[in-house]
Amino acid sequence: MSVITIERKVLEKNDEIARLNRALFEQHGIFAVNFVSSPGSGKTSLLERTLEHLSGRLKMAVIEGDVQTDLDARRVARYNVPVVQIVTNGGCHLEAKLVYDALARINLENIDIFVIENVGNLVCPANYDLGEAMKVVVMSTTEGEDKPLKYPAMFRNASVLLINKIDLLPYIDCNMDTLRQNALQINPSLIIFETSCTSQAGIPEWCDWLARKVPAT
Amino acid sequence: MSVITIERKVLEKNDEIARLNRALFEQHGIFAVNFVSSPGSGKTSLLERTLEHLSGRLKMAVIEGDVQTDLDARRVARYNVPVVQIVTNGGCHLEAKLVYDALARINLENIDIFVIENVGNLVCPANYDLGEAMKVVVMSTTEGEDKPLKYPAMFRNASVLLINKIDLLPYIDCNMDTLRQNALQINPSLIIFETSCTSQAGIPEWCDWLARKVPAT
Repeated sequence: MSVITIERKVLEKNDEIARLNRALFEQHGIFAVNFVSSPGSGKTSLLERTLEHLSGRLKMAVIEGDVQTDLDARRVARYNVPVVQIVTNGGCHLEAKLVYDALARINLENIDIFVIENVGNLVCPANYDLGEAMKVVVMSTTEGEDKPLKYPAMFRNASVLLINKIDLLPYIDCNMDTLRQNALQINPSLIIFETSCTSQAGIPEWCDWLARKVPAT
Repeated sequence: MSVITIERKVLEKNDEIARLNRALFEQHGIFAVNFVSSPGSGKTSLLERTLEHLSGRLKMAVIEGDVQTDLDARRVARYNVPVVQIVTNGGCHLEAKLVYDALARINLENIDIFVIENVGNLVCPANYDLGEAMKVVVMSTTEGEDKPLKYPAMFRNASVLLINKIDLLPYIDCNMDTLRQNALQINPSLIIFETSCTSQAGIPEWCDWLARKVPAT
């Protein structure tokens, strides 16, 4: 039982710091998003398309969470936004304290949208609040329509589902109706966008929806 | 520091039970494989093709590890092999004790190959020995060529890499040479097969290689 108690204490401590992060975001009128998915679903590509689409309209900043390497931070930095890389060194999820420390390194004045790209993992990040306004779960059509049923916590705790790589639908066996039904069975209030970073399908719709979430100043 | 100590103790206890599992496999002349990957890479489909290809030649048994649902066990059961489903109820990896308990429910006489399909997670299962003879890491071409660099522990601890869904290569941006180089940079002794469950490419080569691993009786 002692390990379970420690796990609960870890989560309690995490939630405490997440509240500090949330207060910081709210104080600066920032809408913060926690991007979660399995490895290779296209989180970073979607983030790049989002930065591109909203550039000029809104100011964005990014935290990149990775088990190893700063490859993603380098990709994102090309879009001239403030970016901090967190390398977890084997850790399977971001925690609020890591985000808290990273926030101290970014000037939050005039930022409208803050994207935290979590470690690629459809299990562990589900239970860690980072202080975000919402979790956005990304999944690729290639992962198969059963994933919401098999990894329910992530889909239950997310507000938005981006079904990515829809350009591959003609070549794979993925029924989008079943995928949507499975996702909505786990979380009936999930808002779903279908996207492709190759064809740009769905990117404007997702970005415009996101832009409307920024608090009026 | 106390959490780190507990983590080490958890791993030590796990390794102890893994040794019992390994002894059990060896005693029965079984070659045991631990299938690991991110969600949606095609582990279960590859397992189905493997069961199909080796049916009649070798006797196989399966443990299915999932966070939730018995969907995979039902798929595998159609191939008339003994299968035990382990539902981790949110747990992000299999542990040796779960496998030990599952093994008690399967008659190990005359089994040649035992496949343990782990939870879909490219991070956490890397450090948990289940008593297998080798880890096989599966990744889909759609996940991108940077994955071995970003999730090195799994590729370092695996003996075999199955690069799956190669039928999708014409439609995606994935350089197979770079992917191979990245994988071999992390683990120079990795044995690599390129597979497709749609076109069946690479399935015979992988299965024949696997079949040769079964101890002579």
